[in-house]
Amino acid sequence: MKTRVAILGYGNLGRGAEAAIARNDDLELVAVLTRRDPASLTLHTPGVPVWPVEKVPALRDAIDVLLLCGGSATDLPVQTPQYAAMFNVVDSFDTHAKIPAHFAAVDAAAKAAGTVGLISCGWDPGMFSLARLYANCILPDGKDETFWGRGVSQGHSDAIRRIEGVLDARQYTVPIPAAMEAVRRGEQLQLTPRDKHLRECYVVAAEGADKARIEREIKTMPYYFDEYDTTVTFITAEELARDHAGLPHGGTVLRSGVTGWKNEHKHSIEYSLKLDSNPEFTGSVLAACARAVHRMQREGMTGCKTILDVPPAWLSPRSGEELRAHLL
Amino acid sequence: MKTRVAILGYGNLGRGAEAAIARNDDLELVAVLTRRDPASLTLHTPGVPVWPVEKVPALRDAIDVLLLCGGSATDLPVQTPQYAAMFNVVDSFDTHAKIPAHFAAVDAAAKAAGTVGLISCGWDPGMFSLARLYANCILPDGKDETFWGRGVSQGHSDAIRRIEGVLDARQYTVPIPAAMEAVRRGEQLQLTPRDKHLRECYVVAAEGADKARIEREIKTMPYYFDEYDTTVTFITAEELARDHAGLPHGGTVLRSGVTGWKNEHKHSIEYSLKLDSNPEFTGSVLAACARAVHRMQREGMTGCKTILDVPPAWLSPRSGEELRAHLL
Repeated sequence: MKTRVAILGYGNLGRGAEAAIARNDDLELVAVLTRRDPASLTLHTPGVPVWPVEKVPALRDAIDVLLLCGGSATDLPVQTPQYAAMFNVVDSFDTHAKIPAHFAAVDAAAKAAGTVGLISCGWDPGMFSLARLYANCILPDGKDETFWGRGVSQGHSDAIRRIEGVLDARQYTVPIPAAMEAVRRGEQLQLTPRDKHLRECYVVAAEGADKARIEREIKTMPYYFDEYDTTVTFITAEELARDHAGLPHGGTVLRSGVTGWKNEHKHSIEYSLKLDSNPEFTGSVLAACARAVHRMQREGMTGCKTILDVPPAWLSPRSGEELRAHLL
Repeated sequence: MKTRVAILGYGNLGRGAEAAIARNDDLELVAVLTRRDPASLTLHTPGVPVWPVEKVPALRDAIDVLLLCGGSATDLPVQTPQYAAMFNVVDSFDTHAKIPAHFAAVDAAAKAAGTVGLISCGWDPGMFSLARLYANCILPDGKDETFWGRGVSQGHSDAIRRIEGVLDARQYTVPIPAAMEAVRRGEQLQLTPRDKHLRECYVVAAEGADKARIEREIKTMPYYFDEYDTTVTFITAEELARDHAGLPHGGTVLRSGVTGWKNEHKHSIEYSLKLDSNPEFTGSVLAACARAVHRMQREGMTGCKTILDVPPAWLSPRSGEELRAHLL
């Protein structure tokens, strides 16, 4: 039995999810939904229709799971509860501070409809959350730190683009190796944002723009940049297209802890990702979660869930027997 | 509500589990069971009785979970099914090839009794299995490799001790960095055992023993050593006690894979452990699993399970709300 999936939103993440579905024989892409003119999109998958988003309700009996591939700022807070009232849904909502409110909204809608809504499924939140959870359960006495990068932060790149005189920008988040090493050694430090990450900005300025002002506005921008050591390099649009077209990312979750009766033994647990394409990797997580959410519904579950609630084996197309024989 | 736990077997692993239970406020150690003379054991935990193993059935209403801390070769294949007929049990059975048969025996006993038996809970199988599973689900097109060490292999140390003229021995499994780097780069290699690991042996020989013969017997021992580059260093009993008393271990699970329509993006996922004390870390995994197995029973589950079946949040003492607010 295949899991029939539709994708809502055909930006970078939606395209990444489409490519991931094509690599999983037990997943079938039924349709892509868009707010744009459907005729303006060309899918990679042959024979799959593109529909306007208003047609979503017509999919009610045609799909098992709807993958929501919009943004966390304005799309998902509305869409995930709205569509959880009709479908099993999966999203990659990643505004950590707003997860409890998002969970509550999706939970109410999904419970009323008897569906499952699996939220915040990417790599952070997502795989990094799992790494933190397992490590905390095994080593209750310890400390964890998450490092991001080297990779492109789309939120920080967008923040630079909003500055007057900026045509385009790319911001790389860069972890500081000395801080990672100290955490690996189990040193119990109070690390500030500045200790952990650098921010590298590549900026295309409009002709005649005041570069000194742009640089100052970037470096003093509250929350985004002011708590970090930030470098600003002005480049041409051609250089940006040539050298900074990709969306690589990654990072590391580290936990150091102690065991024994006198804290005499140190342990470190490290989970790390190096990703050439952030949206394709996140789309791959969403695809595996589509399989899991379909299984969760078949097992009689309803309501909002996160990856922390998913029995790991349900993410896999392989049977329990196969997993025990070949992978455990 | 606390989870009431008993430990069966008070070797390195049982002592590690005892220390782990003491660090978790929601776990309570009720008794330690032993095949030795109970009077010969002194526990670290004040006020906890040591009973002969024959008294296990008397614990039927006094505990929620029995942790089986015996060995995989001869203890667990008998004990886990036997005690799953009376209790929820957790073991760290680690003979990979025999997991399906062990699972079947525990499943039959646990289903008949309405209990849960959670098997193979350590770090490999255990945490490494989880790392392999998640990475395979996200990156179906890829390859994973597991590297062990640098750490003490008790099985290989025991194998050396069985050679005539050997008084004691310690064997370190050592991963080969060049092989790890090649896997990290995503090179699809066919790695032999010799490519991946070295074996370092420290041997205390009896006075007058033929060291050349001992070295030859080690290096040619089928399966254990003949497929590896092995070094043998003869040391004194004092040197062994001084320099090789600990049981450190660790290792790394790496998966490299590709995404996109033309395999154009590479990704690597890496999970690694550095452990000062293998038995204390494994005991810490068992303690978290005791909490999970108690929860699985309360949720109405029965039969044999592995860590791949456990919703990750059930390993944690924290509520779903807390986890979503602070860790996800």
